Amino acid sequence: MSRKGHFNAAHRLHNPNWNSEKNAEIFGKCNNPNYHGHNYDLIAHVTGEIDPDTGYVIDMKVLKEIMNEEVLDRYDHKNLNLDFEEFKSLNPTAENIAVVIWNRLRKRLENHLQLTVTLYETERNYVEYSGE
Amino acid sequence: MSRKGHFNAAHRLHNPNWNSEKNAEIFGKCNNPNYHGHNYDLIAHVTGEIDPDTGYVIDMKVLKEIMNEEVLDRYDHKNLNLDFEEFKSLNPTAENIAVVIWNRLRKRLENHLQLTVTLYETERNYVEYSGE
Amino acid sequence: MSRKGHFNAAHRLHNPNWNSEKNAEIFGKCNNPNYHGHNYDLIAHVTGEIDPDTGYVIDMKVLKEIMNEEVLDRYDHKNLNLDFEEFKSLNPTAENIAVVIWNRLRKRLENHLQLTVTLYETERNYVEYSGE
Amino acid sequence: MSRKGHFNAAHRLHNPNWNSEKNAEIFGKCNNPNYHGHNYDLIAHVTGEIDPDTGYVIDMKVLKEIMNEEVLDRYDHKNLNLDFEEFKSLNPTAENIAVVIWNRLRKRLENHLQLTVTLYETERNYVEYSGE
Amino acid sequence: MSRKGHFNAAHRLHNPNWNSEKNAEIFGKCNNPNYHGHNYDLIAHVTGEIDPDTGYVIDMKVLKEIMNEEVLDRYDHKNLNLDFEEFKSLNPTAENIAVVIWNRLRKRLENHLQLTVTLYETERNYVEYSGE
Amino acid sequence: MSRKGHFNAAHRLHNPNWNSEKNAEIFGKCNNPNYHGHNYDLIAHVTGEIDPDTGYVIDMKVLKEIMNEEVLDRYDHKNLNLDFEEFKSLNPTAENIAVVIWNRLRKRLENHLQLTVTLYETERNYVEYSGE
Repeated sequence: MSRKGHFNAAHRLHNPNWNSEKNAEIFGKCNNPNYHGHNYDLIAHVTGEIDPDTGYVIDMKVLKEIMNEEVLDRYDHKNLNLDFEEFKSLNPTAENIAVVIWNRLRKRLENHLQLTVTLYETERNYVEYSGE
Repeated sequence: MSRKGHFNAAHRLHNPNWNSEKNAEIFGKCNNPNYHGHNYDLIAHVTGEIDPDTGYVIDMKVLKEIMNEEVLDRYDHKNLNLDFEEFKSLNPTAENIAVVIWNRLRKRLENHLQLTVTLYETERNYVEYSGE
Repeated sequence: MSRKGHFNAAHRLHNPNWNSEKNAEIFGKCNNPNYHGHNYDLIAHVTGEIDPDTGYVIDMKVLKEIMNEEVLDRYDHKNLNLDFEEFKSLNPTAENIAVVIWNRLRKRLENHLQLTVTLYETERNYVEYSGE
Repeated sequence: MSRKGHFNAAHRLHNPNWNSEKNAEIFGKCNNPNYHGHNYDLIAHVTGEIDPDTGYVIDMKVLKEIMNEEVLDRYDHKNLNLDFEEFKSLNPTAENIAVVIWNRLRKRLENHLQLTVTLYETERNYVEYSGE
Repeated sequence: MSRKGHFNAAHRLHNPNWNSEKNAEIFGKCNNPNYHGHNYDLIAHVTGEIDPDTGYVIDMKVLKEIMNEEVLDRYDHKNLNLDFEEFKSLNPTAENIAVVIWNRLRKRLENHLQLTVTLYETERNYVEYSGE
Repeated sequence: MSRKGHFNAAHRLHNPNWNSEKNAEIFGKCNNPNYHGHNYDLIAHVTGEIDPDTGYVIDMKVLKEIMNEEVLDRYDHKNLNLDFEEFKSLNPTAENIAVVIWNRLRKRLENHLQLTVTLYETERNYVEYSGE
């Protein structure tokens, strides 16, 4: 059972251990100090056994609530670098955001279920993370 | 080689071993006794060796015919609960429909090919099944 | 300002003034007496002057509420023929559903705004209605 | 001839003539002082006579260059409120951004051509502007 | 009532009244003498009064047949320049192909219906034609 | 990190060891001697460890350059059968094109990264290849 959602957020890529020339060289336009933004699309894929009573792997309404509480309502219309502890010292690349989201969703799911998250930064660029 | 198709069908989620309160609580709007419907999108993914004579894993025209006969023409514009034996005692959740479809397609494919089916109930919810 | 939403519903095309042969001939698979279903996608397009204080033609949150109350929550997971007065004597073709939806939304919008609705019955078939 | 492009940008909705309570009430999450972002999708529609020598209304490569220079390269990975004169005193709602883009493209096109721009703020919300 | 279909075809843009330098300059990669191809997506939009007996503007099954016979089956897997009289002396730009398709469909529709065709050459480039 | 691109190309399916009847029977419309075309969509999926300095698995700008040089600029607006050595004796089915693309991209990536390519021949048909 997979479910799609999205959130709009601003971010900036920056490594505080590098000078501004190196940051500009490596991160290019993504290093703009005034921040820029994305419509992130998130897909959570939950796999496991089908429950014989309900015919569900997971109730889609439950998955929807977890995604809204842990990710979509939390990050929507926010600035990832400025508004959240988790990105104070972690560069908000698509790769790192996906790992953070995976950890937030994973702790809310029953143990027998497996989770993969796919995060689209744009329609043409996306990352996938399954927990290791 | 993967191929996409779709069918429109009505269904209702209901467990006959539960009373109507429990059915309403678990299945919510999907328990509406007058049925409701979906445009199901189906993707069949067939993997295997490339045939050196044709350059094909499977001829797409053959896969199209099998999908039409076993799934798309069979279920299109039908009521899953009322019109088919296979859902008389099996709740037509996306998960269970995907398992039924996988079994119908699997028996029509040559043994050396592997099959995965992806079934979209809506653009935002889908399930995947590979045979176990 | 245009906004997209969707709802799942079952329907059946049938003209009570015709016998069953004529109904089957004209409406084909859509005449199946057990109903079938669609994931309808609806786009409401609202045009007018930009309000100089807000920069909005219409506040998207207001349009979202109107669409949810008048259409999406009302028809979602329902049977159009059985559950609604408006389709007791009106055949629920895409064309007629679009006219009904236009009338429901129109009466909730301020007079100086214009409205067009686009209704997708499937990804390949859709209708558009602007009020005459 | 219509052509699609996109750009990522941060923005914030705010009316400096209102106090912060009124701004929060009217603009909701879009008023977040740390900015948030969008992947804007832009479609430029150019209509006119077909040139008998080329068979073109407008050479798509020319339209692509104009869109890149005037809009896509200009706004991509930028903060609309902070980085551009044109939004210093104009609220960057989708409606106002579309008007600004229309004016930038219009002045680059030959007089006998007509222009409409469609701007998607998200997949579900978009605006259209044809010059009045 | 609008309906979508598609066809794959090869083409080459070339004006026989120009020398090869001018053709290369104006048409660029599209002038490749070995031909190249597109997956064309076609949308036919038919508007008119709703028939009170059927609830249809036009029966979608009829529109589907006309599109298949006049356009989709005719051009699919063909070379537009080499295989068809209509493009022997008419450059197969998206604009000109849309006009040809409009004329083929128009003559098959009843007089009281209006027709617009939208032709996508790629996901990012498309043209629209309504008959003048 | 996955990235999407596309190219338009003409091709023809043909096995020179078979006579024209057998070629027509097996490859159907795809055997048209005048060639036909496709808008191919390509997704390159690159997986591996996240670099702690950058937060990247691979810099998307680098992946974009490699895809453009090895595949998109190379094949766009070309005839696969006539314009390239690699398809002189290899039938350009979607399966074989995907293998060729995988080999071209693989040699440009660092050894610790894994690569999968997905190639869409049409919206409904696609193939996937991971290197064996």
